[in-house]
Amino acid sequence: MISAGIVGGTGYTGVELLRILALHPEVEVTVVTSRADTDKRVDTIYPNLRGLCDAVFTAPEVDSLAECDVVFFATPNGIAMKMADELLNRGVKIIDLSADFRLQNVSEWEHWYGLIHESPHLIRQAAYGLPEINREAIKKASLIACAGCYPTAVQLGFLPLIEKGLIDLKHLIADVKSGVSGAGRKAALSSLMSETGESFKAYAVAGHRHLPEIKQGLAKVVQRQLENGEAFSTAFGDEAGKPEIGLTFVPHLTPMIRGINATLYSQTDASLADIQSLFEQRYADENFVSVLPQGVAPDTRNVRGSNHCQLSVFKPQGENTLVVLSVIDNLVKGAAGQAVQCLNLMNGFDEDLGLKTIALYP
Amino acid sequence: MISAGIVGGTGYTGVELLRILALHPEVEVTVVTSRADTDKRVDTIYPNLRGLCDAVFTAPEVDSLAECDVVFFATPNGIAMKMADELLNRGVKIIDLSADFRLQNVSEWEHWYGLIHESPHLIRQAAYGLPEINREAIKKASLIACAGCYPTAVQLGFLPLIEKGLIDLKHLIADVKSGVSGAGRKAALSSLMSETGESFKAYAVAGHRHLPEIKQGLAKVVQRQLENGEAFSTAFGDEAGKPEIGLTFVPHLTPMIRGINATLYSQTDASLADIQSLFEQRYADENFVSVLPQGVAPDTRNVRGSNHCQLSVFKPQGENTLVVLSVIDNLVKGAAGQAVQCLNLMNGFDEDLGLKTIALYP
Amino acid sequence: MISAGIVGGTGYTGVELLRILALHPEVEVTVVTSRADTDKRVDTIYPNLRGLCDAVFTAPEVDSLAECDVVFFATPNGIAMKMADELLNRGVKIIDLSADFRLQNVSEWEHWYGLIHESPHLIRQAAYGLPEINREAIKKASLIACAGCYPTAVQLGFLPLIEKGLIDLKHLIADVKSGVSGAGRKAALSSLMSETGESFKAYAVAGHRHLPEIKQGLAKVVQRQLENGEAFSTAFGDEAGKPEIGLTFVPHLTPMIRGINATLYSQTDASLADIQSLFEQRYADENFVSVLPQGVAPDTRNVRGSNHCQLSVFKPQGENTLVVLSVIDNLVKGAAGQAVQCLNLMNGFDEDLGLKTIALYP
Amino acid sequence: MISAGIVGGTGYTGVELLRILALHPEVEVTVVTSRADTDKRVDTIYPNLRGLCDAVFTAPEVDSLAECDVVFFATPNGIAMKMADELLNRGVKIIDLSADFRLQNVSEWEHWYGLIHESPHLIRQAAYGLPEINREAIKKASLIACAGCYPTAVQLGFLPLIEKGLIDLKHLIADVKSGVSGAGRKAALSSLMSETGESFKAYAVAGHRHLPEIKQGLAKVVQRQLENGEAFSTAFGDEAGKPEIGLTFVPHLTPMIRGINATLYSQTDASLADIQSLFEQRYADENFVSVLPQGVAPDTRNVRGSNHCQLSVFKPQGENTLVVLSVIDNLVKGAAGQAVQCLNLMNGFDEDLGLKTIALYP
Repeated sequence: MISAGIVGGTGYTGVELLRILALHPEVEVTVVTSRADTDKRVDTIYPNLRGLCDAVFTAPEVDSLAECDVVFFATPNGIAMKMADELLNRGVKIIDLSADFRLQNVSEWEHWYGLIHESPHLIRQAAYGLPEINREAIKKASLIACAGCYPTAVQLGFLPLIEKGLIDLKHLIADVKSGVSGAGRKAALSSLMSETGESFKAYAVAGHRHLPEIKQGLAKVVQRQLENGEAFSTAFGDEAGKPEIGLTFVPHLTPMIRGINATLYSQTDASLADIQSLFEQRYADENFVSVLPQGVAPDTRNVRGSNHCQLSVFKPQGENTLVVLSVIDNLVKGAAGQAVQCLNLMNGFDEDLGLKTIALYP
Repeated sequence: MISAGIVGGTGYTGVELLRILALHPEVEVTVVTSRADTDKRVDTIYPNLRGLCDAVFTAPEVDSLAECDVVFFATPNGIAMKMADELLNRGVKIIDLSADFRLQNVSEWEHWYGLIHESPHLIRQAAYGLPEINREAIKKASLIACAGCYPTAVQLGFLPLIEKGLIDLKHLIADVKSGVSGAGRKAALSSLMSETGESFKAYAVAGHRHLPEIKQGLAKVVQRQLENGEAFSTAFGDEAGKPEIGLTFVPHLTPMIRGINATLYSQTDASLADIQSLFEQRYADENFVSVLPQGVAPDTRNVRGSNHCQLSVFKPQGENTLVVLSVIDNLVKGAAGQAVQCLNLMNGFDEDLGLKTIALYP
Repeated sequence: MISAGIVGGTGYTGVELLRILALHPEVEVTVVTSRADTDKRVDTIYPNLRGLCDAVFTAPEVDSLAECDVVFFATPNGIAMKMADELLNRGVKIIDLSADFRLQNVSEWEHWYGLIHESPHLIRQAAYGLPEINREAIKKASLIACAGCYPTAVQLGFLPLIEKGLIDLKHLIADVKSGVSGAGRKAALSSLMSETGESFKAYAVAGHRHLPEIKQGLAKVVQRQLENGEAFSTAFGDEAGKPEIGLTFVPHLTPMIRGINATLYSQTDASLADIQSLFEQRYADENFVSVLPQGVAPDTRNVRGSNHCQLSVFKPQGENTLVVLSVIDNLVKGAAGQAVQCLNLMNGFDEDLGLKTIALYP
Repeated sequence: MISAGIVGGTGYTGVELLRILALHPEVEVTVVTSRADTDKRVDTIYPNLRGLCDAVFTAPEVDSLAECDVVFFATPNGIAMKMADELLNRGVKIIDLSADFRLQNVSEWEHWYGLIHESPHLIRQAAYGLPEINREAIKKASLIACAGCYPTAVQLGFLPLIEKGLIDLKHLIADVKSGVSGAGRKAALSSLMSETGESFKAYAVAGHRHLPEIKQGLAKVVQRQLENGEAFSTAFGDEAGKPEIGLTFVPHLTPMIRGINATLYSQTDASLADIQSLFEQRYADENFVSVLPQGVAPDTRNVRGSNHCQLSVFKPQGENTLVVLSVIDNLVKGAAGQAVQCLNLMNGFDEDLGLKTIALYP
């Protein structure tokens, strides 16, 4: 049994962690912090937990958190980077669901997040928390930078293709649609039901923070393949030999609460049958990724409330354009579920311990 | 480990049973029938079960069902009554989620359901499947008539008041609102998203099949109290001494998928404080019913996907009118979850085995 | 052609006024104020008005508003009462969509709205803006206190019954359900789509500001009938002869944007057929109220975007309990449409001028 | 005043025609047919029309339709082609909202629609009903093949770019999202609220009927420019000189009722500023198309219930990939509104007569 703390327990990823951990057989949540709701019972804010969670919100203090084996940060960006150093020094493992340690390039991070990074020295030691890509590093890490929701859906969809060098990396398109819970539990006009219900829109078209994260992630896959001596079919990368990803990423807001659907476009000569097999093989041993039979497209509800990603591949009209569909629940595989998956790996538990929930249908 | 069959596995209550039983540690689902989808894998129809359920739909045949320890009927009304007799004779226990055995009065059943009852002799031996009211009978029964969704929400809300004789039984009002999954998985114009989305309406105002079920249930509570020698504050019942329930029941359709909210009105002299205590005491030992703190009203999402009922009581403006709010998930506590709760009782398992799921929020 | 000003043009009732008035053949909107969005084009905030509205938000100033023939207040409560006096003195007519002049009893208003009333002397001269009840007074008034959204739906449903003295006034119940736009365009956690979508709840059960407004309105109907010498079937009213309304009012939030459904319960001996005729006669000459054929219940979408109210009456199970269903669009008949209906009456225009829009279906 | 008939008045495009035409000052709807609802009042099926439409559904018969000046077909595919010839011969103009006359290539039509075309000789004389592209032909035509909903949104987005030869025609992507009303008013499992609510999915990825229509439309624009002697920057087209459009079209279903958002990807060297100007100029005189200010993305609700199309252009990250966003209401600009726009053109009315409705917000 390990003890866990949650910093920022009143956001949607925080309550989702509570929902999952309340039934996790090897974890006891001993500290849940919230500045705004200090001293309130967790189940008064989240009545879905009534009878299943006796925790009380406390103020976020290093001393009490330092008594946990592991601390999750389900906070806005910029909090984990302030507290991580001390907690790590006191032997606590950290799983950060925010973006503080996701980008290896500090100045890029500071550009996109509009903050000065307060712990740049920790960035290199953070393992990127996307187990299907980075499992071995996660097992050994003390600090996990959980992948973002969009990056998870997009990277899992492109991964097999890039590993095999099958697509033109300069012309990738990710047209991604998210439910509104991705905007978090913040009182913002733009997230009102009257503003988002019964309507659909693109947003942040000119640039979204998850763009550099996705590009970094895909470039790393290429880099790793190159290091492994994989022969990519065509020369690529910039002059310095660094792989270069040309990606257009357009996020959209769709009138539902949970779920991400990524529709990914790339150019390839490979046949659909070969790509279907490739995907099936690549993910055959993955607990949380499943490839649908040829011709079947996934609904986001297939994974609502579960830690699964479902993928489909299509080559419409026999053209070179390949379409990959990738769906996840942004709060589970895109956040809290993935964090617990990382926790399981870090502690040698079964990777799906506490994560065997089934998507709610209908 | 017991083996279970599900007849009618393609409806919403059927798939909800599958979702729950797939993770139930003491049940193995060995037969799932569907006329329409015979020979298809269950997870092609319900892709939320991919990787978690290898079952294949078969045609509904008594011989294969008779090999199960227990058979659930998640069928339209009129199916269970045809197959129950033979299955019971062959030693199979039956949990019927349809309405076939809910009404003790055969002619009343035939009036409301528009069918000739084919197994009237079994009605008396059926235990009404609402554990909070009828636990001991359920434990001993071979045939369970699970309570309907509306009747569950309404009866749990009125129960403590009627047991104590605190309300005027002649003037009860149940204004009840349901999500659209209550209409089942049937291709009907009136259930289209274009017809039900962004709109709210009352329906079946002149009379709904759940009305006689609720009245029968409440009358039985009165009857039991009378038999126990409880002194009701005022004479009531018709001349023959039979308790008479005057109930106006108006169901409404609300633009969401899951959830029932019952707003119950009755007349009482008792104080709100006393009623709050009464509810808390009455349900103190119930796993699946919780009474919210005074002044807090429940959202249906508090119980979405879980087997819980949440209750609140109010006396607005100091008048005699008492308002009870009762919320459940119509597919769980109102159907499949309640059925599994009954199964647990019938088999001596912990009552909440396989039912510890937490409502999805947000 | 008259000139109109709108104070508080950025809320939902404000933009709804703009939508209606943009096509009104006898009104030109010359001033639209907004503190927060001063100097912005209206159609940048409300892109549905692109190409149809050239207005620019200005700061709310009496001098510019005083040049209008009429000024609408689509503001939070407490604003109109500060500006009304001066505008009236300068010959401007006022149509207040907020609650400032709705309650005749100042201390009751101050209790429910938590403010000191700054223009109590104007309350008596304000005509209550519900044309179906108060048409003649509206025609002659300079200051209109538009009826609230819930009060409109509830009063139109009870009106014919009270006028004829057919129901027991001590035991009225209004179980009312509203879309979320009723909460206005305010950044509030409780109005987020993630908080209100796919869920249903009661709120303000212990007391809602619209309760005294409804009771005052219904009492006034009784009073008027008494003054007209109508013989009510039974003695009623308190000892001083003042009619007393016993009303339990429970508002609920339903996961849709627009629409109110009121389900009204009362006790009557009258037959359903007589009540159906009564309703049809009472509203035969009303442009905006229609009584559905017997047995048909209204959907709120029947009136979405239109100024209509649709009504149905039922007596389920032959009991004395009468059920009236009443639906409106809270932003139209419950706010901006009603305000324009009043404007038309005040100016001698056809009552439905600019209001002939048809509800959007589906 | 002209008289109009509507064949297939019970579908969503039919009722939308009724909603628009009920207030059109120059049109009287004299015949509305429906096989299923013959002899019923239209307002019993569509209660939003109560008080505004006295029509009664009749059986579809050529004789009564032949007395109209114009007949709209709001029918499933395959009906208009059976009745058009006789009506045209009897001097009736036809506006077909179905797909019967959209594709110039008969065998292509028969392939995609799975029917034998019964009036292939009429195809050539049908004018494609997308006024912004084909206004002059529409004015003179007796038979209009109204553009489909997806084709309208996609073509208006690509049009200015293709007219100026600015994009690579071989690599177009249209990632399009539609509300569920696009599936029509048919009792289909896949359109239930329980199936489509709170979920998002791609469908018909391997091929959708609107693909050949879009390709034909875009090719025609190229053809016309070539005929006009416009110099396209690069050689394109197949060897025979026929312009060739390489388009990947992926439709998606989004959990709302009305609205289409097309996100269009193409490759161009032109600067964003030039493209923004180009779009503004191209549509400066169009009543129903507006180009949003740079950096602003449209919501589908901006046009809900109105005949407008709103467009935005972006070049994210300075790459060559251009992103065009295009939103319409699928039932208005994508169907009934566009049909009335064509009617206005055919009759010399103002193009926006009866179409000045403003989108409902919120």
